[in-house]
Amino acid sequence: MYGYFNGTILPVEQMAVGVTDLSLLRGYGLFDYFRTYNGRPFQWDWYWERFTNSAAKLHMSLPIEKDEAYQVVMELLEKSGGIDMSFRFILTGGYSLDSITVSQPNLLFMAEELPPHNPNQYETGIKVILDEYVREMAEVKTTDYKRVILLAQAIRAARAVDILYHKDGEISELSRSNFFILKGNRLITPNRNILHGITRRTVLHLAEADFEVEERPVLLSELYDADEAFTTSTTKKVLPITQIGDFTIADGKPGERTKYLLEQFEELVNNW
Amino acid sequence: MYGYFNGTILPVEQMAVGVTDLSLLRGYGLFDYFRTYNGRPFQWDWYWERFTNSAAKLHMSLPIEKDEAYQVVMELLEKSGGIDMSFRFILTGGYSLDSITVSQPNLLFMAEELPPHNPNQYETGIKVILDEYVREMAEVKTTDYKRVILLAQAIRAARAVDILYHKDGEISELSRSNFFILKGNRLITPNRNILHGITRRTVLHLAEADFEVEERPVLLSELYDADEAFTTSTTKKVLPITQIGDFTIADGKPGERTKYLLEQFEELVNNW
Repeated sequence: MYGYFNGTILPVEQMAVGVTDLSLLRGYGLFDYFRTYNGRPFQWDWYWERFTNSAAKLHMSLPIEKDEAYQVVMELLEKSGGIDMSFRFILTGGYSLDSITVSQPNLLFMAEELPPHNPNQYETGIKVILDEYVREMAEVKTTDYKRVILLAQAIRAARAVDILYHKDGEISELSRSNFFILKGNRLITPNRNILHGITRRTVLHLAEADFEVEERPVLLSELYDADEAFTTSTTKKVLPITQIGDFTIADGKPGERTKYLLEQFEELVNNW
Repeated sequence: MYGYFNGTILPVEQMAVGVTDLSLLRGYGLFDYFRTYNGRPFQWDWYWERFTNSAAKLHMSLPIEKDEAYQVVMELLEKSGGIDMSFRFILTGGYSLDSITVSQPNLLFMAEELPPHNPNQYETGIKVILDEYVREMAEVKTTDYKRVILLAQAIRAARAVDILYHKDGEISELSRSNFFILKGNRLITPNRNILHGITRRTVLHLAEADFEVEERPVLLSELYDADEAFTTSTTKKVLPITQIGDFTIADGKPGERTKYLLEQFEELVNNW
């Protein structure tokens, strides 16, 4: 696996960040994460747009242009010997003399193996547990994921695979993916206190033809008459959720409409 | 300046953390920061206790015992050629294969120069601006300081030097230091949504003999009849606050009782 650090391409295992970096000292960093299909970055324009937006929200400027970043990605892909793989972009506050002031951000790209595919999860659906929490600056892809790491034991103890955040009776998102429910032909997904996922955006586009799409605040109480639920992310695609804490969605089996949306998504990426 | 990384002592500028560390990827890290007076770590027992408590709260175990850590600090102090200097301890989630699961934490110590002393601030007092915010897990010294870095421009624009957090009408703390007010002989400081500072604790001990100490929730509205205000931290000691946003504390000059507490503190550390 190869990576890129402030202009230099080198093996990921040789990449290291000096200890005065503000991501280490002060948690000041952001990232993005995307994958390739058939050797091409999926939804590159949208991922790049989000990455630059995150940087702007954290008052940092990117030391690379979009076209050059694309060339670097293609070079890392080739050097790393992959066709379908994932990439992580990280922008940190950079090295700080006084341990608090941003000067020159550090930019890293890393090629990564795709996480192992788990076909069983698509057949049975997954279980998540509820957590009363809203991510700070949820709309920005900062590196702040303390909460889900803190709850790792609780998730395992519940035989779940992730958490679903809610606050003041309103659902937002899973720890690293978006949330949808279906009621009949209505496809409903929260529109605030969330990271606006690229897979979410892709699925909403795909769904327009066949579903009545509602992007709006979603109440916890709406789970009780949901017919189906699923989550979307770069690596999960469209993954059915069948249990939320002790509550079972409908008959506890992945829904037909969820499967249909996954098929639509698979068709899109297979032809990417 | 010398540091320590998982058992190895080396110059700080040669210290670097691999890019799969969870502090970089997920902001999963904690730290502590203390200084020496006359070549001895100040309040070592209390700082170590806080560091181990932070680690426990983030479900990490420290790979070093207290006595060995002390020996390492003394070695770093000697190698770095200092008598009075500061030390930063950092514990991260360590290298993660799947970019989310903690396995073996990384432990770093770094000797640092003390920040430059600014005598003028003690003569005039400092200005802070208000910010409606509560640090997540405020009682744990995580590395999450995004907020104050984000507001750096706003602080400079207001010709202030820091921010004072408040939420729901209640004051908590400055971005990296604690907050006190004096009303007559009553010394009042918030007791929740704060990091329990070691200098705060030291000052409360020193104040017991001469003041009526109140550790309790402090309302924003209490600023209006405060006679004095100050902040405490490892590097600031007891630093007068004379302006909060557009509001001036009393006559806008550092208070006599604040000066007295600073003198008490200086006497303690000079004889440490």
